[in-house]
Amino acid sequence: MIVNITLPNNTSYDITIDKLNDIHFDTKVVVVTNPTVSGFHLDYLKKYLSAKELSVVTIPDGEEYKNMSTIDMILNHCFEHRLDRKSLLVAFGGGVIGDMTGFAASIYQRGINFVQIPTTLLSQVDASVGGKTGINNKYGKNLIGAFHQPKAVLIDPSMLKTLPKREFGAGVAEIVKMAVTFNKDFFEWLEQNDLTSDENIKIAIAKSVETKADVVSKDEKEHGIRAALNYGHTFGHVIENETNYNTYLHGEAVGIGMVMANKLAVKVGLMNEEEALRVKNLLEKYDIPTSYSIKDVEDFYEHFFLDKKSLDNKIKFILPKGLGDCVITDEVSKNDVIEVLKEF
Amino acid sequence: MIVNITLPNNTSYDITIDKLNDIHFDTKVVVVTNPTVSGFHLDYLKKYLSAKELSVVTIPDGEEYKNMSTIDMILNHCFEHRLDRKSLLVAFGGGVIGDMTGFAASIYQRGINFVQIPTTLLSQVDASVGGKTGINNKYGKNLIGAFHQPKAVLIDPSMLKTLPKREFGAGVAEIVKMAVTFNKDFFEWLEQNDLTSDENIKIAIAKSVETKADVVSKDEKEHGIRAALNYGHTFGHVIENETNYNTYLHGEAVGIGMVMANKLAVKVGLMNEEEALRVKNLLEKYDIPTSYSIKDVEDFYEHFFLDKKSLDNKIKFILPKGLGDCVITDEVSKNDVIEVLKEF
Repeated sequence: MIVNITLPNNTSYDITIDKLNDIHFDTKVVVVTNPTVSGFHLDYLKKYLSAKELSVVTIPDGEEYKNMSTIDMILNHCFEHRLDRKSLLVAFGGGVIGDMTGFAASIYQRGINFVQIPTTLLSQVDASVGGKTGINNKYGKNLIGAFHQPKAVLIDPSMLKTLPKREFGAGVAEIVKMAVTFNKDFFEWLEQNDLTSDENIKIAIAKSVETKADVVSKDEKEHGIRAALNYGHTFGHVIENETNYNTYLHGEAVGIGMVMANKLAVKVGLMNEEEALRVKNLLEKYDIPTSYSIKDVEDFYEHFFLDKKSLDNKIKFILPKGLGDCVITDEVSKNDVIEVLKEF
Repeated sequence: MIVNITLPNNTSYDITIDKLNDIHFDTKVVVVTNPTVSGFHLDYLKKYLSAKELSVVTIPDGEEYKNMSTIDMILNHCFEHRLDRKSLLVAFGGGVIGDMTGFAASIYQRGINFVQIPTTLLSQVDASVGGKTGINNKYGKNLIGAFHQPKAVLIDPSMLKTLPKREFGAGVAEIVKMAVTFNKDFFEWLEQNDLTSDENIKIAIAKSVETKADVVSKDEKEHGIRAALNYGHTFGHVIENETNYNTYLHGEAVGIGMVMANKLAVKVGLMNEEEALRVKNLLEKYDIPTSYSIKDVEDFYEHFFLDKKSLDNKIKFILPKGLGDCVITDEVSKNDVIEVLKEF
């Protein structure tokens, strides 16, 4: 299965969703990965990937290493191996690996190509479209980075066999997000089909990727509709922050965030109770958490303003409009938000 | 005088060459400058520049600070002042300030706008077109960076009054470079006119900028003809490196480099002796150095290969073809090069 992504500058790249096939690059290639992915899949990758000169840099696993020091590790490896402007980086891992490899590629000698081989469901459906790369710093997440598009994305769903169940669920949460905000047919298909089947997960990945590509193509630099991809994230980011990023996976926090956004959508009349329940049921089918206990509602509310997407002290909410559509609004009253938060 | 620069994505920006005029930005603005420029010109700038919220970050002066730590200083200032995605950086200084401010702007929240107000002749003619930004590291110069175009460039030639004479000459060297490689009429105009006159320097800046813009527009990412802008640089970089970057200004090293390239052009029959002499005379009119004493010819030759532009172990020379034209070639024999180097 191949999804072709057209970029605003009229170039394009392919997302191939299938078992890996032989690929040869006639350039120097550096594979960026972490010990976990490397342990499970590096030998498998090396069976198929060859290059003029292939080397691997293994960086520490985890969001806490998504910083400039790790970028330096990657860049230094590239300099030591004398990569030139035609060389290529391969991001082999989850979202953190993808974001960092893409960022390193974007600034190495003012930009070289990179290929994504995402190994988690979340990164397969989410990180392979959009060109967002970046790192965290003490001020927040993804605050330093670049828009840098991959040359190609290779998604091999067979790698998901080694993915922990919770991480699989976190990926499903992003798939559900895409369906709820943009595609009612897809949502209904998700209700009727089991994503743990090999064939279905391929279809779901392709559908998610196509949907995201369609949105991103209309808004590469996130000035408008692309913000809708943050459905569940406004709440999710606060949850992640309150729990010090060590309780929920990103996709899980987004799952809870969607349930919160839905309650708000019901409150302001954009969604009915039954629709909200269907989303919740679908999430729970994959054991994605949907409840959360807010300690201090006012404090939770104040946290919204720390989000970099909150310009001019207004909070932008992405609220579903029924199923398969959504609105982006900064006109929800504080009162309505507080009342919804009190239910958690 | 305004030169409009069209970019490949069909956006464009203006380079205004004139005394500063009132400019107001309805966003947060951070001016990035250094103590020298700030001492001479910051009050002058503040007379004309206003913003919704204006702050200044002063970074240390000099190429040795063109590194990631200084970028962090700039970014941290931006985070502390809570710049958002609509905010703007202003590069107020020479090439180092321009390169670093542009790079910081390119990675702050995945890219915000920046405006160049170059204060040296070199940066006025060279750094204001092309979108190259970057920093140095232990592996070499400008090895980390991005292509990031300014929103506007404001060149006020009155700021050149405080520029040391050597730095003025270094800027003239780049102007001569542009004329020799691309524009014979401009070269002859330069022979006949004195650049220390207010009116003439404006014309020369505009002409240089137009010429460079024309080249860059044909080749934004430096795959072909843009390499011709490196005329004098292949030799110049080695000279800078051999003298530890503390003997010659960049433009001065390029001046010597052009004289070397010309000798090689004469040797391979692309230029005649008289043409080479005219270039040398023009450089010397502005006290730009044209001689250099090479200690070890073989060693000098080996240095070429450390240049990042030397892919596949071939040295790419940019050689003038008469006056106003040039060729890019990697087919000059080592023997010819060595013989030319022996003359220095």
